[in-house]
Amino acid sequence: MRDVSIIGVGETKFGALDESLRELIAEAGNKALKDSGADRGEIESLYFGNYCGDRFVKQGHSSSLAALATGLKYIPTIRTETACSSSSGAFKEAVLGVASGAYDVVMVLGAEKMTNVDTLEATDILAMAGDREFEGIQGLTFPGMFALMAQVYSKKYGIKMEDLRKQLSSVAVKNHRNGYYNPSAHMRKIITLEEAMDSRMIAYPLNLFDCSLISDGAAAAILCPSNMATDYSDDPVDVIGFGHSTDILPLHLREDLSRSKATIIASEKAYKMAGIKPEDIDFTEVHDCFTINELISLEGLGFFDSGRAGEASLNEKTTVDGSIPVNPSGGLKSKGHPVGATGAGQIVESVMQLRGVVEKERRVDDAEICLVHNIGGSAVTCFVHILRRR
Amino acid sequence: MRDVSIIGVGETKFGALDESLRELIAEAGNKALKDSGADRGEIESLYFGNYCGDRFVKQGHSSSLAALATGLKYIPTIRTETACSSSSGAFKEAVLGVASGAYDVVMVLGAEKMTNVDTLEATDILAMAGDREFEGIQGLTFPGMFALMAQVYSKKYGIKMEDLRKQLSSVAVKNHRNGYYNPSAHMRKIITLEEAMDSRMIAYPLNLFDCSLISDGAAAAILCPSNMATDYSDDPVDVIGFGHSTDILPLHLREDLSRSKATIIASEKAYKMAGIKPEDIDFTEVHDCFTINELISLEGLGFFDSGRAGEASLNEKTTVDGSIPVNPSGGLKSKGHPVGATGAGQIVESVMQLRGVVEKERRVDDAEICLVHNIGGSAVTCFVHILRRR
Repeated sequence: MRDVSIIGVGETKFGALDESLRELIAEAGNKALKDSGADRGEIESLYFGNYCGDRFVKQGHSSSLAALATGLKYIPTIRTETACSSSSGAFKEAVLGVASGAYDVVMVLGAEKMTNVDTLEATDILAMAGDREFEGIQGLTFPGMFALMAQVYSKKYGIKMEDLRKQLSSVAVKNHRNGYYNPSAHMRKIITLEEAMDSRMIAYPLNLFDCSLISDGAAAAILCPSNMATDYSDDPVDVIGFGHSTDILPLHLREDLSRSKATIIASEKAYKMAGIKPEDIDFTEVHDCFTINELISLEGLGFFDSGRAGEASLNEKTTVDGSIPVNPSGGLKSKGHPVGATGAGQIVESVMQLRGVVEKERRVDDAEICLVHNIGGSAVTCFVHILRRR
Repeated sequence: MRDVSIIGVGETKFGALDESLRELIAEAGNKALKDSGADRGEIESLYFGNYCGDRFVKQGHSSSLAALATGLKYIPTIRTETACSSSSGAFKEAVLGVASGAYDVVMVLGAEKMTNVDTLEATDILAMAGDREFEGIQGLTFPGMFALMAQVYSKKYGIKMEDLRKQLSSVAVKNHRNGYYNPSAHMRKIITLEEAMDSRMIAYPLNLFDCSLISDGAAAAILCPSNMATDYSDDPVDVIGFGHSTDILPLHLREDLSRSKATIIASEKAYKMAGIKPEDIDFTEVHDCFTINELISLEGLGFFDSGRAGEASLNEKTTVDGSIPVNPSGGLKSKGHPVGATGAGQIVESVMQLRGVVEKERRVDDAEICLVHNIGGSAVTCFVHILRRR
C-alpha cells in the first residue's frame, strides 16, 4: 500500500445554520481545495460521508449532490454511511483508494443538515442507528442506550453514581471550555461543574450537559500519496495508522457494556500500523456523543485503565495542558455534532492543531502525533486514525 | 494494485417477499459464503450496499445490521449508497480494499426491502435520488425523468414516437422472456409486443411495461486476490476492469439527455483497464430501470451507434442468441429492482452465466467475458465492471 497524506482541510462553522446542505458542502469543499493548493481538475475521486439526508432534508444519493456543489464533474463519487462515523468511513475508504494506486488526489467530505427537523424527529432519526427490530421499536433512543452503559460502568467499577455524575460533568466542563475558544464551535459557553451537574435529567444518570448537540455543518480534507504531498503543501500531515471495527449492533448481545470492544480492536490495529503506543500520542479527538462515551473511549484507546478515566478527567489530566489533551476542539459536546460531518471535522481540527494554527487557549503546543476516534451508533462502528506532522 | 477475483456468489429470490431486511441479508450472505468455500472467520471486511433502509424500514447504520445478520463479528464494515447502484459501489470499493492489500477475503452484500411501503411512498423515496431542491420539490419523479430522456432521444435521432414506443416495448418483451426462465426473478411472465405497447401510460412515452419493478431482495459476492482464488474456488471469475463516473445531478444542467455521459466515461475506463473493446464482450447486464435506459446505456457502452439500439433490439440483436445478449437475467424489468441489491444481483447473475450454470433457455453459451452496468439515479452515478472466467 502507498502511504497517504493530508494536504488540505476546511470546514464550516458548526451550529444551527441558515445554509442548506448544498451550501454547507460547497463551503467546506472549497475551503479544503483552496487550502490544499490543488486545482479542482486534479481531484480524481470524492468520498462523501452523510448519515441521513434521506430524512433530515429528503436528499438521498447525496454523493452526486456533493460533486455538483463542489464543482467536481464526472469523477467517481460515493457516499459512505456508518451513522455518526459516516465521514470517518469516507476518510478511511479514501485512504484505501489512494493507497491502492487507483487515485492520486482525492477529496473527503462530510456534511449533515439536522436542525430543520425538531428535536423529537432528530432523536427518532438518530435512533435508527440502533437495531430497529430489537431496540428502535421498543422506544430505545441514544440517550437511553448510553445511560445504560453509564449504569453498567458505575456498577462494574464500583463507582458511586454520585461520583460518576461528577466525573461525567467534568468532561462537559472541559469540553465546553475548549469549545469556548473555538470559533467554529456550535455552543461557545463556559460552564461550571455545578451548572453541569444541576442541569435537567435526560436519561439517568445523563443530564442535559452530558449530551452532545444537534448541529448543522460540513468538513473536508484533500488526500494524496505521501511522496507527492510537498508538491501541494508546506505542512502535510501523514496518515500513519488506521483501524476500523464493528461491535455487535444491539446492546443485549454485547459482552460488556462498560467497555467499547470496537474501540479496543480499532485502536490496536491503528497503533500497530503506526508502530506506536498510546503514550506517544500528543492529543486526541474522541467521540463524546455523551460524556460517558468519552470515558469509555479513553479507556478503550489505552490512555487510562478501565474505570479510571473519570477520575483522571476530574483531576484535569485531559485538559489542553494535561497529560493527554482530549477534545481540544470542544468535542461533539461543544463544537457540535452534525453527525455526517463529525469525523471529517475531527480530522480538520487535528490537522490545524498539528500545524499549530489554532487559538492559543486551546492549542496543544508542539503536537506531533494525534489520534482521531469516531464511533457510529451505540459505539458499534469505530474508526481510529493516527496522524503525524512532518 | 493487486488483481481481484470473485470466489463465491449468492442471492435471494427477488420479489414482494415476506422476509425482513435482516433475513434477506442473512440468506444472501450465507449462500455466498457457502459457495465460496471460505470460513466465516476468514472474512476480513464487509462492504454493504443499501439505498434507503432509513425510509423503507427505518433502519440506518445498516452495515452493522448486515454484519450481525451474517454472523461477522468485529470486522470493518461500511455501507455505501449511490441510489440504485449502491451495491455496485460496495463492490467497487471492496475491489479497491483487496487491491490495496488492506484485506484478502472480503464480502460484498447488497439488500433492499421496498414492498412494505406503498407505491406512492416508494416513488417518493426513489425520487430523493434526484436533486431535491431542483427536481424533487417540483414533483419530478423517476418515470418523468426517464420519459424526458425518451422524448429528447426521439427528437435527437429523428425516431418517430410511434416507432420508438415499439422499440422500447421490444426491450420489455425480451427481458420478460429471459426472466420467465429465471427462478430468482420477481415477475416471471412472457408478454407479447402488443401487450407491452398497450399497457397503461405512466409518463409519456413510457407505459407500465417500460418501468422496472419495486422489489425486495439481497445478493452477495466474496472477493479475494486473484492469486489466492483457486485456493477457494474451482471456477473463480476475475475482475479485469472497472470504471466509475458521476454525471451532473439535475437534468437541466446536462449537456445532452439522449446520451449517458457517466456510462460513456465509466465504460471507457473499464475497457482500457481490461484491455478489450465492446466487441470482446460476450453478454452484458445493463441497467434497464426504464426501457429507454437500456437503449441509451447500450449506446454509451459502445455496443450500438447513437440512436440505433432500439432498432437493434426490435431486430433481436440483444436476445440470448443475438449478437450481444443483454440482460439474460431478465434485468430490472423482470428479475426485479430491489435497488440496493440490484448491482450485486447483476454480479451474481454474471458469475453464474460465466460458470454456465443457468437455465438453458436463457444461457449465453461459452461466455468468457461479460460487462456489468449499473446506474444510480437519473443515470447520474455509473459503475461498469468487466468480468472474465478463467
